[in-house]
Amino acid sequence: MEIPTDRVEKAQRLLAEQNYDLLVLFPSSNMLYLSGFYDEPMERMLFFVLPREGGPVFLVPELYEGQVKEETPFPEVRVWKDSEDPRKLLQRTLAELAPGAAKVLVDDGMWALFLLMLREALPGADFALSSRILNTMRMRKTPGEIRFLEEAGAVADEAFEEVIRLNIEGMTELALASAIEEAMRDRGADKIAFETLVASGPNGALPHHRAGKRRIEYGDAVILDYGCKIRGYCSDITRTIVCKRATKEIQAVHDIVNSAQEKAVQAAGPGVAARTVDRSAREEITKEGYGQRFIHRTGHGIGLEAHEQPYITESNALELQEGMAFSVEPGIYLPGKFGVRIEDIVVVAQTGAERLNRCSHALQVVG
Amino acid sequence: MEIPTDRVEKAQRLLAEQNYDLLVLFPSSNMLYLSGFYDEPMERMLFFVLPREGGPVFLVPELYEGQVKEETPFPEVRVWKDSEDPRKLLQRTLAELAPGAAKVLVDDGMWALFLLMLREALPGADFALSSRILNTMRMRKTPGEIRFLEEAGAVADEAFEEVIRLNIEGMTELALASAIEEAMRDRGADKIAFETLVASGPNGALPHHRAGKRRIEYGDAVILDYGCKIRGYCSDITRTIVCKRATKEIQAVHDIVNSAQEKAVQAAGPGVAARTVDRSAREEITKEGYGQRFIHRTGHGIGLEAHEQPYITESNALELQEGMAFSVEPGIYLPGKFGVRIEDIVVVAQTGAERLNRCSHALQVVG
Repeated sequence: MEIPTDRVEKAQRLLAEQNYDLLVLFPSSNMLYLSGFYDEPMERMLFFVLPREGGPVFLVPELYEGQVKEETPFPEVRVWKDSEDPRKLLQRTLAELAPGAAKVLVDDGMWALFLLMLREALPGADFALSSRILNTMRMRKTPGEIRFLEEAGAVADEAFEEVIRLNIEGMTELALASAIEEAMRDRGADKIAFETLVASGPNGALPHHRAGKRRIEYGDAVILDYGCKIRGYCSDITRTIVCKRATKEIQAVHDIVNSAQEKAVQAAGPGVAARTVDRSAREEITKEGYGQRFIHRTGHGIGLEAHEQPYITESNALELQEGMAFSVEPGIYLPGKFGVRIEDIVVVAQTGAERLNRCSHALQVVG
Repeated sequence: MEIPTDRVEKAQRLLAEQNYDLLVLFPSSNMLYLSGFYDEPMERMLFFVLPREGGPVFLVPELYEGQVKEETPFPEVRVWKDSEDPRKLLQRTLAELAPGAAKVLVDDGMWALFLLMLREALPGADFALSSRILNTMRMRKTPGEIRFLEEAGAVADEAFEEVIRLNIEGMTELALASAIEEAMRDRGADKIAFETLVASGPNGALPHHRAGKRRIEYGDAVILDYGCKIRGYCSDITRTIVCKRATKEIQAVHDIVNSAQEKAVQAAGPGVAARTVDRSAREEITKEGYGQRFIHRTGHGIGLEAHEQPYITESNALELQEGMAFSVEPGIYLPGKFGVRIEDIVVVAQTGAERLNRCSHALQVVG
C-alpha cells in the first residue's frame, strides 16, 4: 500500500520527545500504517525496526523479501533463512542501529515470543507499548482515511439491504454469515474486518456469540454484526432484525436501544468526553429499566483495526476531537431470550458527529 | 467445545516438573485446547489462569461471562466490567492463587499489552513461553484429533475438485479465493483456517502473496493454498494449476516439485529427524538446479493452529513420533514469471507417514 513517508519522520519526532530509543513493530496495523506492508501475525520473525534517528530497517524471512520490497518505500531489507536462527540477525541489527538502547517501544499486539526475544537481545532495556506514540498519530483520521472508512461503511450498508431480502427462516447462522460476507465481496470489499457475528434467538443474549449451526426460527430476533476492509480501513455495523414477526417485547427493546443509540450520537462532538457519549446511551437504557442488561461499553475507535482507541466507556475522560472515528453500539441482552444491538460508525466533525452508516434503524421484519 | 478435563491435570504435572508456578493464557488455541473456550485475540483482558495446584480461574469481561460459562467445564469465572480497570481483578486473583509466583508461563502469542500487564502485577517474576509444556502435549495428536484433521483435509480436497471445474480465465484472484471458501463452507467447514492464497502468474513467485485484484490470464500458473477448520482443527493444502495451457517450463518445474514432495513424504516416519524430511525435498530440487529458488522450509506442524510445531526445516533435529501432523510443501519460485508449490498434510504412522490430502498431484489444466 502506498503510504505517506512523513509518518516515519513524525514517529521519530515522537520517539525523541518521549525519550525512547527505538520502535520495533511486527506484522500489525502499525506496521501497515508506517511502512505500507501488511500480513497476518506469524511465527516467523518479521520486524520493522525504527531507531530514533536514521532510516528504518526491515528484518524479514527470505520468502517475504520480494513482497516487502514491492510494498514498502524503504530500501533497507535484511533477510534471514528458514534454516537460520533469526536471533543472530536481530542481535547484529540492534547493536548497529541502537547500541545500548534502553527504552524501547513495541507493538501492543506483539507476540510474547518476540517480546521475549527482544528482551534477550537487549537485556536491561525497558519495554513499553507503541500506542504511546502511535495512538497520537492514528486516532484522528485524515480526510483520505475518512474516505476509506466511508467506502467500507457503504459496502456494509449495501450488504444489509441485500440480505434482508433473503428468506432467513431455517437458514443456519453460518449460512447467513456467508451470505453477508459474499455480498460485501461482491461490492468490492478487500476482505472481512472480523469474523461475522450472526446471533439468533437466545444466542443474541451472548454479545459476542459468533455465527454457529443454529437454524433461525420464526419469530427470532437476529443480531447481525459485521464489517469489511477497504484499503486496510474497517467498517463495523450492527442491526437486529426479526424473522417474519416481531413480538411486542422485541419491538419495545429495539425502540429503547435505538433511542439510546440516537442520544449517544447526538451527544458526540469535539471537546466532549468519551464517557459523556457512553453515559447518554446508558442513561436512556437505565431509565427504561434495562441498565443491568447493557453489559458492555458503548463503543470503540475504528480505523486500520476494527477495535482501536478511543474507547467509549463509562470511565474514559478523553476529550473527543475532530476526525476521531468510533462505533456507537448500545445493546440489551435478555438471557435465554434474545438480544438487541444497533451500531453505526461516526466521525467527529467540526460540530457534532457524522454517521458513516446510513441504512435504516427501523426494525426490519425479514423473510 | 467439549474437551477432556485431564488436559488441565497433565499441564499442572508438567508445570510442577519444570518448576513453574503459573500458566496464564489469553484467547488462543492453547486456551481452546485446555479450556474449551475460544475467541479471537482481543483488546479486553480475558485470561485462563492455571496455578500449579488447585482449579483454574477465568478472568473475563462481563460481556463474555455467559459464553465462557457455557463453553467450559470450569466453574470459577470472575468478571470485570468495561467501566473498570482489569488490573485490579488481575492483581487480586494472582495474589490469591499464586502468591509470590516467580516463574510464569504465558501464551507464545500473548499480546505485549497483556505480558506487560502481568509483569506489572508480578514484579520480579520470570516469564517464559507456554510452548515449553503445551508443545509436549499438543504435538502428538490423538486418534480423535487426527479424525478432525482428516475431515478438514477431506473438505479442502473436495473444494479443489469443485473449483477446477470453473472457467478461471479473467477471474480475479479474490473471486477465485471466494469460490474456494464458499466450496469449503458448503461442505461443512466451520470457518477458514487462514486467509486463502491465490497467486497467479508472476504473483506466484511471492510465496505468501495473498489473493488480490489481478485477473487470471491464459497460460498462467496459479497457486492455490488454503484450508478450513472443523471443530477447531485445521487443514492446509496447496495445488498449482494452469489456466487452459501448460508451458513446457511450468510442466517441468511442476514435475520437479511433485517429485520433491513425494521424496519428502517417503522419508517421513517415526524416529526420523525433521531435517531429514526437509533434506529429502531440498536435495531433489537442488539436483535439478533450482536449490536457490526453494526459499522456505519444507513444512510446519498443524492442529488447532495452521502453523505449529514441529517445523520441518534444514536445521531441526527433532525426531518425529507417531501422531505428529505436519505439512510437506516444497516450492520453486521464479521471480517475474511464476511459482509452483504442492502441499499435503501428513501424519506420522507406526511406520512411515500417511497423507491426509488425497486429491491428485497431476498438473490440472483448468477452464
